[in-house]
Amino acid sequence: MRDVAAAAGVSLATVSRVVNQIGGVTPETRRLVERAIEELGLPAPVPRGGTPKPVEGAVYVRCPYVLTDYFGLIVSSIAETLEQHGRQVVLNAGESVAHDPVLTRLASRRDVGGAILILPPEPSEDLVRLSSRRFPFVVVDPRTALPRDIPSVSAAHHSGARQLTAHLTALGHTRIGVIAGPREWLAADARLSGHSAALADAGILPDPALVRHDQPTTLHGYRAARELLALDPRPTALVAFNDKAAVGALQAAAELSLSVPGDLSVTGFDDLDLSRATTPALTTVRQPLQEMGRMAVSLLTRLLDRHELEARHVELAVDLVVRGSTGPLSRFD
Amino acid sequence: MRDVAAAAGVSLATVSRVVNQIGGVTPETRRLVERAIEELGLPAPVPRGGTPKPVEGAVYVRCPYVLTDYFGLIVSSIAETLEQHGRQVVLNAGESVAHDPVLTRLASRRDVGGAILILPPEPSEDLVRLSSRRFPFVVVDPRTALPRDIPSVSAAHHSGARQLTAHLTALGHTRIGVIAGPREWLAADARLSGHSAALADAGILPDPALVRHDQPTTLHGYRAARELLALDPRPTALVAFNDKAAVGALQAAAELSLSVPGDLSVTGFDDLDLSRATTPALTTVRQPLQEMGRMAVSLLTRLLDRHELEARHVELAVDLVVRGSTGPLSRFD
Repeated sequence: MRDVAAAAGVSLATVSRVVNQIGGVTPETRRLVERAIEELGLPAPVPRGGTPKPVEGAVYVRCPYVLTDYFGLIVSSIAETLEQHGRQVVLNAGESVAHDPVLTRLASRRDVGGAILILPPEPSEDLVRLSSRRFPFVVVDPRTALPRDIPSVSAAHHSGARQLTAHLTALGHTRIGVIAGPREWLAADARLSGHSAALADAGILPDPALVRHDQPTTLHGYRAARELLALDPRPTALVAFNDKAAVGALQAAAELSLSVPGDLSVTGFDDLDLSRATTPALTTVRQPLQEMGRMAVSLLTRLLDRHELEARHVELAVDLVVRGSTGPLSRFD
Repeated sequence: MRDVAAAAGVSLATVSRVVNQIGGVTPETRRLVERAIEELGLPAPVPRGGTPKPVEGAVYVRCPYVLTDYFGLIVSSIAETLEQHGRQVVLNAGESVAHDPVLTRLASRRDVGGAILILPPEPSEDLVRLSSRRFPFVVVDPRTALPRDIPSVSAAHHSGARQLTAHLTALGHTRIGVIAGPREWLAADARLSGHSAALADAGILPDPALVRHDQPTTLHGYRAARELLALDPRPTALVAFNDKAAVGALQAAAELSLSVPGDLSVTGFDDLDLSRATTPALTTVRQPLQEMGRMAVSLLTRLLDRHELEARHVELAVDLVVRGSTGPLSRFD
C-alpha cells in the first residue's frame, strides 16, 4: 500500500479509500491509484473466503418478476442511478422471489441500509410494519393501494388510459371493448377509471359487458378479444391495458379476418419494443420506465439523508403514442 | 435475542443465524424465529447509518446492457439461482457500466467473493489479469474470444445458424441474404460460419456480397434488408442474426410489397417475445437464456468451492423454432 501511495503520489489514506471503494476521491486520483496498483500488482488485500466488507449504504432492490422489457428497464435504471450515487445494489430478482417473505426480515438485515421494492400484490401490512421500524424504502409501480406514508413512484395510469380512450372517441368509436389487468391491481383499476372518464367526456355510458379482467399476457389478450369480438353488436375498438395483451387481440382480429384499423382499432399500453413489431404498429401509452427508476433512487436518497419527503406518492406523466393500429370508425359500421 | 430464542424455543445461536442471514437453518425454524421477532418487535440490531455487514460469499454480477428480454432473462436467472444457493447478488447493470473500468478493481474489492460477468467487447487482457489474481469469475455469452482458461458459458451459435440455414436450403433457397451482427463479435462470427457450413452442405458457395454487418437493431435490420433486396437477382430469403433485426427486415419487405413467406422468407435469432408478435411470426433460434444463467452460477459455485473445472468453455444447445415467416421457394422465382 505504501508503494502504491508513493507511486501514485497520494496519501496512504487515499489508497485505502480507493481499494475499499469508500468514495470521497476524485476520478483522476482514483485512476492514478488504480494505475499504480496495476503496475505494482498489489494482491487482493483480503484472502478469498474471508468475510467480505460492503460499500457503505448498500441498497436492496427487489423485483419479483423476470427482468424483461418492462421491469428490466425499471431495474436497469435503478441500478445505474444507484451506481452514480456510489451505492451498491443488492439484487433480488425473478419469479421465485415472490414467495420469499423477505419484507419481514429486511429491517433486521445488516448488509443493506435501504430498499427499492417492486412488489407482487401482497399484504400491505408487511410494508406498514417495515415502515414502522424506520427502515427507509420506496415502492415502485405498486400493484395494490399503499398507505399514505409509504413513499412510492408510479405512472399516471388514469391519465394515460383517459388519453387513449379520448383518442378513440375522437375517431368516432363508441363501442369499445376493454382487455384489463387483474381486478385487484391498482394499475388496472386506475386505467379502467381513466377509460370510463374519457367515455363520460364523450357522453358514453361505460358497459361492464365490454370489460374482461385477467393476467396481462398475449394468451389472455387473444381469449378476451375473441369473447369481445363475438358480442353483437361487435365493438369497433379494443383497448388492451398492456402491449402483450394487444398483440393477442391483433392475433384474434387476424383469425376473424378483421382488418386493423379498417374494421377494428386496437391499442396497447406500455410502449414495449413489441408495440413497434406488430403490423400495423400499436397505438399505445409510453410509460416513463427509466424515469421511474431514477425518481425512486432520488426519493430513497433523500430518505437515507434523513430529509423529509413532501410528496410521498409520486406519479409520473405518460405519453400517448399514436401509430397505425387505430383509425376512424369505418363508414360501413 | 434471548427473549426471541425463548419464545421460538431455539438456541441463541439459531436466532443469530436467522437474524444475520447465515443459513444452515431449516425453513420451519426460520419461520418460528421470524414470528417470534415479529411478536416481540426486536429492533434492527445495527443502527441505520452504521457499517452494514454482508452475507458471506456475495457475488458481483455485471451486465453493461439494459436488462430487456435477452440480457434481462439471463440476469434474472443468475439472480434467482444465486439466491437459491444462499448467495447475495451485487448488481452492476445498465449501459453506463460499459465505460466503468471495473475489472481492474474487482480483485481488490472486499465486498464480493466472485463474479459473473456479461461483457461488452473489451480487451481480454483485463480478464487475463483478473484471472491471474485468482479472482473466481465466469463470463456469460462472451462477445469476443476468450483465453482458454477463463470459464465461460455461451449458446451454440454455430450450430443454431447452421440449423436455420439448413432449414432454408431444404425449402429450396439458394440465394440467402445475411443481416449479421458486428464483425468483431464472437457470436456474429460463429453464426456466419454456421450459415456458411449449411450452404456448403447444400453445395452452395457463400457470397460475401450477400452479407451486411452492423449493430443488432431493428433500424439496422431494415437498412440492411433494403440494400440486400435491391440486389439483382434478389435474395429469396433473409437470415437476420437477431429477432430485432428480423423485425426490421419484415418492415422492409412490407414496404416493397413483398409477401412473407410467399415472396421472401425471413428468419430471426434469439426467440424473444418479439418473434411471436410479428405477422407472420418469425422462424428463429431459441437460445437457452435461463439455462445460461443457471450454468454460470453452477460453474462459479464450483470455482468458489475450489473444485477444478474440467470444461471451461461450456456451450449450450439451441433449438430451431419454425414459424410462419419461412416457406418453400416460390415457383415463380
